[in-house]
Amino acid sequence: MSVKRHESSKILSSAVEANGFAFLAGITPKTLTKDIKGQTEEVLTEIDRLLKVCGTDKSKVVSATIWVTDIRNREAMNEAWTAWNGGKDLPVRACVEAKLADPRMLVEIQVTAAK
Amino acid sequence: MSVKRHESSKILSSAVEANGFAFLAGITPKTLTKDIKGQTEEVLTEIDRLLKVCGTDKSKVVSATIWVTDIRNREAMNEAWTAWNGGKDLPVRACVEAKLADPRMLVEIQVTAAK
Amino acid sequence: MSVKRHESSKILSSAVEANGFAFLAGITPKTLTKDIKGQTEEVLTEIDRLLKVCGTDKSKVVSATIWVTDIRNREAMNEAWTAWNGGKDLPVRACVEAKLADPRMLVEIQVTAAK
Repeated sequence: MSVKRHESSKILSSAVEANGFAFLAGITPKTLTKDIKGQTEEVLTEIDRLLKVCGTDKSKVVSATIWVTDIRNREAMNEAWTAWNGGKDLPVRACVEAKLADPRMLVEIQVTAAK
Repeated sequence: MSVKRHESSKILSSAVEANGFAFLAGITPKTLTKDIKGQTEEVLTEIDRLLKVCGTDKSKVVSATIWVTDIRNREAMNEAWTAWNGGKDLPVRACVEAKLADPRMLVEIQVTAAK
Repeated sequence: MSVKRHESSKILSSAVEANGFAFLAGITPKTLTKDIKGQTEEVLTEIDRLLKVCGTDKSKVVSATIWVTDIRNREAMNEAWTAWNGGKDLPVRACVEAKLADPRMLVEIQVTAAK
């Protein structure tokens, strides 16, 4: 058994590989002036990048957890979500409301992929 | 490595099999007029159905995340939970409060099972 | 495939082993008079104990979900978090705000480890 960690900060790794899975950190947007659709696009672009670092890609994502700061924003988030995956190779998903680290962050997404 | 997806909608799959696990989506109740005990029963029945689709069952659930819209409803949710599993083959679990997609939904449960 | 369950209560197991992973329950503090730093220290000590029960340890934690009842407490929680892992072998992580089972609980942490 080996655990491979990528892009560690002081408190977390951005991605960890173990036992045939790539676990990604909960990803938040960097451009906090964007609306939730724009923030979601940014988050999903970063997720694509981290999946590649782990040698996998969005076609192998098995599970996603999505936190939105206002559940009524779910539809706008889903627009970016659907544009990203094209309705193909869809993971299981849970989407609930929660306050995030910075009040200007509107969405956080955490995925796990097979590899 | 293969990923097997079941009952995909436009935004998610209801269940995904990979690397010896069955991941299920966060399941919400359909009959929104029921109280939380009734809603939990309905959710757990759907979870049984999806576990079967993946070739596994509730004796192999390893982990559960439960979101309730009012944490004070936890006891009533637990009554349905305990009736379901009979206190046997219990998964690890986290249960926290969160707003869900529809204000009439009182509970959402997501499980992962071995298979 | 085998599933090994540890320290089951009426509603959950404290830890479950399956397919090369150790899944731990969401751990809450017992000394509810402590501040969030003290509560986090207590939770992480319990996590160490349960990881050992599963034959693994904190160097193999792959993923952590942290719920805090007030997201502004994140920094104080992070102090205990960093003291615990020493900035080494860091898991992926998501940290969001949620109400927990008892209003005096300020933090709940759930981890998954490879083994």
